[in-house]
Amino acid sequence: MTQTVDKELTPERTEARRVMSGLEYMRKIMTGELPPSGMVQLLNLKLIEVSEGHAVFTVHPDERHYNGLGIAHGGLAATLLDSALGCAINATMPAGKVFTTLEMKINYVRPITRERGELRCEANMIHVGGRVATAEGRIMDKDGKLYAHGTATCMLFRP
Amino acid sequence: MTQTVDKELTPERTEARRVMSGLEYMRKIMTGELPPSGMVQLLNLKLIEVSEGHAVFTVHPDERHYNGLGIAHGGLAATLLDSALGCAINATMPAGKVFTTLEMKINYVRPITRERGELRCEANMIHVGGRVATAEGRIMDKDGKLYAHGTATCMLFRP
Amino acid sequence: MTQTVDKELTPERTEARRVMSGLEYMRKIMTGELPPSGMVQLLNLKLIEVSEGHAVFTVHPDERHYNGLGIAHGGLAATLLDSALGCAINATMPAGKVFTTLEMKINYVRPITRERGELRCEANMIHVGGRVATAEGRIMDKDGKLYAHGTATCMLFRP
Amino acid sequence: MTQTVDKELTPERTEARRVMSGLEYMRKIMTGELPPSGMVQLLNLKLIEVSEGHAVFTVHPDERHYNGLGIAHGGLAATLLDSALGCAINATMPAGKVFTTLEMKINYVRPITRERGELRCEANMIHVGGRVATAEGRIMDKDGKLYAHGTATCMLFRP
Repeated sequence: MTQTVDKELTPERTEARRVMSGLEYMRKIMTGELPPSGMVQLLNLKLIEVSEGHAVFTVHPDERHYNGLGIAHGGLAATLLDSALGCAINATMPAGKVFTTLEMKINYVRPITRERGELRCEANMIHVGGRVATAEGRIMDKDGKLYAHGTATCMLFRP
Repeated sequence: MTQTVDKELTPERTEARRVMSGLEYMRKIMTGELPPSGMVQLLNLKLIEVSEGHAVFTVHPDERHYNGLGIAHGGLAATLLDSALGCAINATMPAGKVFTTLEMKINYVRPITRERGELRCEANMIHVGGRVATAEGRIMDKDGKLYAHGTATCMLFRP
Repeated sequence: MTQTVDKELTPERTEARRVMSGLEYMRKIMTGELPPSGMVQLLNLKLIEVSEGHAVFTVHPDERHYNGLGIAHGGLAATLLDSALGCAINATMPAGKVFTTLEMKINYVRPITRERGELRCEANMIHVGGRVATAEGRIMDKDGKLYAHGTATCMLFRP
Repeated sequence: MTQTVDKELTPERTEARRVMSGLEYMRKIMTGELPPSGMVQLLNLKLIEVSEGHAVFTVHPDERHYNGLGIAHGGLAATLLDSALGCAINATMPAGKVFTTLEMKINYVRPITRERGELRCEANMIHVGGRVATAEGRIMDKDGKLYAHGTATCMLFRP
């Protein structure tokens, strides 16, 4: 993993995003041409869909994701949601324009355990303006049962 | 780590919280008598202070916590904050009373990188009623510089 | 208006909700059999649709709703959203079961002025469990342009 | 009231903020040299303190602020909080720099009724950067009992 992470931080990688749109960039991560980020690897999240303003990440929750109460830590759903929301917004940005997340809010509606099987987090943009974007996302299992939902506010800029 | 996690999920452990207050329980985690949760281990967070309605977790951010932009993923701060907020509220609960987090909200005010060194997340309860509690937390470096802040709403109940 | 408000606060009115579902109650407000609340009257909001888990309020913004910057105060959209979210959730409650709003979050995406004409706030429940419910809402003009959106978390109980 | 509101919207007033800092401007509202905004008048809110990054508004809740449940509508606390948070942030802005609220979040911890007497909402900035600011506020009665609390995220810019 160390090599992957080192590679990820090279100036070449940062440069890439200057000449590639957010959507092209996220697609390269999805296909494996670019490595996923450290945190996404650490939590074993997977980007499985991305289009303009839309993204889906999945995870198989297991004990490594648990809190002390025998269910997944709130940080798992928060990281999954933040990944999907950021990716959905990134996928609306042209080359040279980037975003930073100003705030995120998450509602937990059911406990997540490994017995739930694979969970999907679907994120969709709500509003993308010149300087600010918002998106919403939902974490569901294969039957469409809802576990968490939330929104994020991002600021858009050219570095 | 597998053993630790298995131990954590034994009925004995769940039983413990029925006869121990939240504060006693969190103190046993701080001193190492009880293992930290899977997620706290995975992200390398550390509980260093806990008292009634107050908790402090720390983390040394590194590349494993990064997103694709060369800074820490929003999920790191979210997990750190959720851990500290939950612990602060847990530490107000008598034996037999537990809580579940209904929602959390986090504002990101500065990028987190490994160069920042150790970060602390201090959480304090705002309001603890019979059925609902709220708490706030701030993530700062050793100089008191602020990186993120947020709040959570929890529901309190007897299982 | 004083009479209306006094009438609204009689024990008879409170009693009504014990034998009527939330949906029946909200429909009586919509048809004028029961008076709207003081705040809804003060801001000139109108309930125009209600069904299980769904509600729509409208408002014609004018200078009485303005802040010092020549646009509608954030409190107008917040009150409109809170009204619609609460009504959508109320409309899922059987007789004798009521709710209280624990928290609300609103994103402002475009300034609201009187030139926008009538605005609608559509709210829909996201999740209704035994003790907690969440809903989301959007404020739009007649062309579907978005001005604000948000969510609320409510606790459900029998008084 | 119509005259007051008309006056408020004159180009002279907008111009004022270009040559006056946010703090000077808010002080003129507090002393009555400039009229309060339409919404602040409509809900009968009062600005009683303002300094850099800090503001206090008060209100005497009455039946005009009520919802259908015999307590103050969530919109009252939301408007009060939004007013105080915006004012606290405005009071950090130099002449020519203004802000817009991107999002606000409010937690309701106790019901507000007229019997509570005068309520104060104290707001304080948390972080003010070049482009983004955050603030928090609490609504309390004279005994310091807490009724609601929340935060806002604002974007700062030069028009």
